[in-house]
Parts: sequence; structure tokens; C-alpha cells
Amino acid sequence: MPHTRSSRARTVADVGEFGVIADIVRDLSMPPAVSVGPGDDSAVYLVNGSAVMSTDMLIEGVHFRRDWSSGTEIGRKAVAVNAADLEAVGAAPLVMNVGLGVPDDLPVQWVHDFATGLRAEADTVGLTLVGGDTTGARDVTICVTVIGQTDGREPVLRSGARPGDVVACCGRLGWAAAGLAALGRGFRSPRAAVDSQRVPLVPYGAGRQAAQSGATAMIDVSDGLIADLGHIADASGVRIDLRSAAFEVPDPVQAVAAATGKDPLGFVLTGGEDHALVATFPAGAVPPEWVEVGAVAEADGASAPEVTVDGAAWSGTSGGWEHFRS
Amino acid sequence: MPHTRSSRARTVADVGEFGVIADIVRDLSMPPAVSVGPGDDSAVYLVNGSAVMSTDMLIEGVHFRRDWSSGTEIGRKAVAVNAADLEAVGAAPLVMNVGLGVPDDLPVQWVHDFATGLRAEADTVGLTLVGGDTTGARDVTICVTVIGQTDGREPVLRSGARPGDVVACCGRLGWAAAGLAALGRGFRSPRAAVDSQRVPLVPYGAGRQAAQSGATAMIDVSDGLIADLGHIADASGVRIDLRSAAFEVPDPVQAVAAATGKDPLGFVLTGGEDHALVATFPAGAVPPEWVEVGAVAEADGASAPEVTVDGAAWSGTSGGWEHFRS
Repeated sequence: MPHTRSSRARTVADVGEFGVIADIVRDLSMPPAVSVGPGDDSAVYLVNGSAVMSTDMLIEGVHFRRDWSSGTEIGRKAVAVNAADLEAVGAAPLVMNVGLGVPDDLPVQWVHDFATGLRAEADTVGLTLVGGDTTGARDVTICVTVIGQTDGREPVLRSGARPGDVVACCGRLGWAAAGLAALGRGFRSPRAAVDSQRVPLVPYGAGRQAAQSGATAMIDVSDGLIADLGHIADASGVRIDLRSAAFEVPDPVQAVAAATGKDPLGFVLTGGEDHALVATFPAGAVPPEWVEVGAVAEADGASAPEVTVDGAAWSGTSGGWEHFRS
Repeated sequence: MPHTRSSRARTVADVGEFGVIADIVRDLSMPPAVSVGPGDDSAVYLVNGSAVMSTDMLIEGVHFRRDWSSGTEIGRKAVAVNAADLEAVGAAPLVMNVGLGVPDDLPVQWVHDFATGLRAEADTVGLTLVGGDTTGARDVTICVTVIGQTDGREPVLRSGARPGDVVACCGRLGWAAAGLAALGRGFRSPRAAVDSQRVPLVPYGAGRQAAQSGATAMIDVSDGLIADLGHIADASGVRIDLRSAAFEVPDPVQAVAAATGKDPLGFVLTGGEDHALVATFPAGAVPPEWVEVGAVAEADGASAPEVTVDGAAWSGTSGGWEHFRS
């Protein structure tokens, strides 16, 4: 029996590559800095100061599951994780390109929802979609490249932390990891934690604020606080000590820890995917919205751990998420 | 029996994400325009004039097969197809980010070869690798975003062709499609055609030359000459007529056409993936390396085909490659 329009959802194979693109860029308007948007061989735009660029890929089955997150949520997350990398150097958002690979049988509605989420988060951030590529793929594959600008400020790198600096955080810690643990056990709650896993609540603007306040080093927490501070310690040649008493364990994280028999502080210190910002500041320069959680000290030998908690190596849940390692 | 190091090739799972990245960026040096290269949250670089950006994805099984092309060839192709998009607007190459998704069991040697090819082609083009992302994936997945700069020139768009302009090409036409036809029948020859399929011979510099010579519209031939000129005709609101006598069918294309019983001119007019450049120029402005192949005329009604060959619709092999359509 032949398929009829009403018997099944329309797929990307039904509308073709140009149909998919037309839906993604529908009614887009370009700001004055963008002279050429989607539809030509390349996009063209003006940059104020130095240009800043970052890329993140999200692949179905690795970074998200379509039965755990909606297309809208995945579109928002694809922008948020990239925008966090601009925040992490103190840059202002400008434009983005999106590569999208989709299976032939993917419903067109999913692409529409994805584009809606992508563009909603981009509007929130202040990023304009100016181009990209669409293609077939076995798994839904998303590759976003964001461009920012320094507006004349120096970028805040991982390498500038100095002994005597204080360490401060802005944004959620442990929520996304708690949400993932809940989803992994078949739960859809606590809702706030699960929602954080689906779409991280990046503290937009806080990175630029930190740069203006004189932050000496900064990174966004994608792999876990201890793991990501390890990158700052490495690049800066310093030790970092965190005070466990400085961290409040939020209720949803507490709830998941209780339900799973895990250490609640482990989620906070080693949970990834929240894309909070952590930075080092000269004493007294921490902006009001940021929370002081530790201090930077001289490196004291090759054998000592570079990031400690209350002066000792973290002995709870091990930190960080690295692809390919099993 | 446990695996031993000597019993099998090392895989990306053996070296992990950071091992993969370290191999890709080994001994990279940055030009003065790049103040922050790989290793921080974002790259930072200076742009001369407006910034120009383009993205292309290449996915195993869709765009390449690992048994048909080496890692080195796939790395080179990933850069070439993107660099062609910068040429197609007359921009100068600057920097690039690379997203790479790989299966756990992919040999590390493949990644090494890929990085070698990627960087060799980038050196040829004048692009510097400044960042990217690596992740796990079922299929090898590559997403390159290239950034160029206008150096103060106006970008050459698809929309500027005017009646009276001449149409001219620079680069190969039909070679890659002939190579694909040969590979698809199990052949590895004619070598020149097969090599063109594996790594397109983009006429680097010709796009900037065309822009300086006053090209009014330009595109790179990724889907086929007639299909891609259709985008210029569409965007410019004109008709384009090609003279079949202007095209020389190269020997390797002739050979594949003879062996497969296909029209040799069909490969030239509708074959994709060579990434030649085609542009429109005011009469007398065509640069010496370019070959005049047709003329631009007023659009004369909605029903007429926008691109004709010797005044008539092309009746041979149908043109263009569109993803998702079966």
C-alpha cells in the first residue's frame, strides 16, 4: 500500500535539503554588522576588535537522546554550550554557523522544533544565525561554530591565574549531572535538575562582567569543576584549593544524591554540562553575582594534585568527562 | 584472551580525547594575526576588513568512504571544499575550526593521517587551524568552519550578474563525477579522475583574482555547473546560456563516459564536487586563466529554464546533487 500524506509524519526526505534549509532560516533578519547572511557561499560580517571563535559538536547517542530531550531543547543546548565558550574568554556574541546532519526518516517537525530552539537561544544570547550546512547522517549531528568579538577588551585566558588570586563561580554546579543521573534511572524529576541537563542555564553576560572586573583566568564548567579548574591550574602553573563549605548543595541535587546513594558534593565538584563560569580574580575584585569558593597558591611540586578540596585531593566521585575513554 | 599492544592497531579509545587533540595540533605555529590558537575556550584573531565565514560537513558513508579515500585525502578534501566557499566570494583565507567525531575503534593512525592531510591543505590554502572539538560518533564526522577576510574588497555574491555579462569558469569540471562513477563500478582508474574525486583541485587564488577583475557574481561548482549557475540566475534574476562548444571534455572524463556509456558532456555540465569556480564578468574583464563558456541575458518569463545550453534546456543527464532526496 502506498504511503499517503496523512498516514505518516513528513520526513526530511520528503522536503529535501533546500526545504530543510528554508525552514531553518525562515524570516531571519540580519543586524547591521552582517552584510551577507544565509544563502550565499559564505557569510560576511564586521567584527569590533579581535574575532573570537569556538566550535562544539553534539551527536545523538553521545550528547543527547531524542527520547530524553525535545528538538527545541537540543537546539537551545547546541547554542548554549557554544555561547558559554565565548563567555569563558569574556567576549561578546556576534554570529554563528550551524552544521546539521539528519537521517532521511527524521520528521520535518523535529527539524522545525530544533530550529525554533536554536534561534530562541541565539536571540537570548545575541547571536545571529548567518549560515551553515545540512546533510544526511545516520545520527542527528549538530556542529555549531560561534563568533564573538572582544570589543577592545583583552580576552581572559586559562593561563593568567596568579598565587593570591581568589577563585569564584557564577552559575549552576551539579544540576545537569544530577539530571542525567535521574534520566539514566528512568526518572523525569526533579524537574529543575532534568531541565538543566536538557538545556544548561548559562550565566550570559557574567563572563564579560568578569573580564571587566579584572578576572585573571576563566573557563566554563563543561567537564566538572575540579577537572576544568585543573586546566586553569595547568595553563597558569599554579595550585588551586577549594573550600567545601563555600558550596551550597542545591535541593534538586540533594534529592538525586539521596535517591541514588551518591555524595551530593560530588555532583557539585565533578558534575559537567552546567556550563557555569569559574574564574580567578585579584582579591577584592569579585563581582557581586559571583561566589568565592577557593584560592590560588604557588605550585609546590610535581606530585601534588593541582586542584585540592580543603587542602587534600578530592576522594569522592572522580571528576570529568572525557570522550572515547571507556 | 586479553588484547595486547602488539596484537592490534591502537584506537582512539586507547589514547582518549586529549590524546587525539594533542596529535591533531602537534607543533602548530600561529601567524601574527592569531593571538590565541588551540587549547583555550575560544580562539582569538584579527580580521582585515569584513570577516567571511563558511561551514561544510563531511560524513562517512554520505560524502566519503574510508575504503575509497585515505585519511590524508579526506583531511585535504575537508579543507578544500570549505576554502572553495571563501574563493567563491573573493575572500582571502584566514583561520579554521574543525569538529571531528570518531568511532571508539578507529585506528589512531587514521586520525594522524587525517590531521596530516587537513594541515597540508590548510598550509597550501593559507588557513591556520585555531580550534575545534572532538567527540565520539558512530560514523567519522567532520565539520570544518573557515574564516576569511575581505581585505577591503567587496565580496562577490550570487546576486550581481547582469544581462550582457559573460560567464567564465576556472578549474576542473566533470573530473570528480567521472571519478565517482569509476569508483562506484569498482575501478581505481583513470587515476586523474579518481584523484579529483578524493581531493578536488580547487583553483586557489582564482576567486580573489576574479573579484579584483570586477566579477559581478560567482559560485563554486559543488553540485554541478548547471545547478550552481541556476543559483546565480535565481539570485540575480537573469537567464544564463552556455555554449557547448566552449567546453573541452578532458581525456579522463571521456574515458569514463566511454566505459559507462554516458554522455561525456553530461559529466562536465552536471558533475559536482570539483569545486571549480564559475563567475560572471563585464565583457572584456575575464582574467586570462578563466575560460569563457556562456553569456547572461534578461530573464524572459517564468516558464523558461534559467540556465540553457546552446539556447535549449539541457536534455542529457540531469544535474545536481541534493541531500535527502531519493
